[in-house]
Amino acid sequence: MAFEDVFPKPIKEAIESITKIPTYGERGASRFVYNLLKVPSEDRTLIVDTLQNLVKSIKNCSECGILTDRDVCAICSDSKRSKKFICVVEESQDAYAIEKLERYTGVYHILGGRIAPLEGISAQDLSIDKLLERIEKYKPKEVIIATNPNVEGEATANYIIKLLRKQFHHLKITRISYGLQFGSFIEFADEISLEKSLENRK
Amino acid sequence: MAFEDVFPKPIKEAIESITKIPTYGERGASRFVYNLLKVPSEDRTLIVDTLQNLVKSIKNCSECGILTDRDVCAICSDSKRSKKFICVVEESQDAYAIEKLERYTGVYHILGGRIAPLEGISAQDLSIDKLLERIEKYKPKEVIIATNPNVEGEATANYIIKLLRKQFHHLKITRISYGLQFGSFIEFADEISLEKSLENRK
Repeated sequence: MAFEDVFPKPIKEAIESITKIPTYGERGASRFVYNLLKVPSEDRTLIVDTLQNLVKSIKNCSECGILTDRDVCAICSDSKRSKKFICVVEESQDAYAIEKLERYTGVYHILGGRIAPLEGISAQDLSIDKLLERIEKYKPKEVIIATNPNVEGEATANYIIKLLRKQFHHLKITRISYGLQFGSFIEFADEISLEKSLENRK
Repeated sequence: MAFEDVFPKPIKEAIESITKIPTYGERGASRFVYNLLKVPSEDRTLIVDTLQNLVKSIKNCSECGILTDRDVCAICSDSKRSKKFICVVEESQDAYAIEKLERYTGVYHILGGRIAPLEGISAQDLSIDKLLERIEKYKPKEVIIATNPNVEGEATANYIIKLLRKQFHHLKITRISYGLQFGSFIEFADEISLEKSLENRK
């Protein structure tokens, strides 16, 4: 008997569809599907219902691009948040990590990725025109570049900083600082972080 | 502004629900959700629809316990498959891996796991009573124990072999053999596989 006649179609289709998600290969997709089927049946339904609600209700904020369940996100539409500070991040989850601190009172701008030539992602694939538009419109006091502290995040930051310096002569542009991670050991710190942590000493 | 007021509920709920899936912690669940939201919107809907269909239609075969979209699976209900051979595996995906070879013509028995005292999984949590029932009913010529080639799979195999020997004196019980993996190098083989591969030489 041919394998296709034996293997349940709903499992095959679910595995195939999960491989459409970035970073999920066939192995990761199978693992997801079979582990999902290990969950007791009420919880399985709950999981799928929350995913259904997720894909139905989440979109990108028309202003900053963050993932939100509103047309304009809770941050952009809050009059207490100052549009004089724009924090530029790669992805929504970066902004939400900063939000968790409950200290930043400005707004965000989500690039939707980082410049990664090896993956074919260039500046044109990021939400940079919209950033320039927003700077034009809101005339912020400061733009904080908070791309990730790695090679691609650095390259993206440098690209944007150069562009902004050229177009907005008096704009204050800052970059989040490197340093030692809280709870880490100097002994095991990488050289760049240690060096930056000494340079940026207060 | 409190983080809960800013963080979209559908994202929060989706991450929380995914952590109900075995092996998914908060990090893996976040990664799944945010990567899902990177998928273009038609594909997102397709993914969730296939998952909906998966959890609605897939159940355990009332006979062998394999994951199937029928009451009795395609294997058990096929008159060309011999119930005189029962291959005992830990999980449905193990049986489907064997099915992919399109060589085995007997039936399966899915244990639903393996004995793992450290995770609190004991023999009582596995479908062993049902296996005894099926052996009683079908009087197979051979029971093939195909639990995984690792410590827990071995312990589970040994437990079942001992039990079957006690209850069914004339039953032929076999264990899948260890050996070198196809495409591997003797130089890098682990000792157990190499030893077994010499022992089991034909």
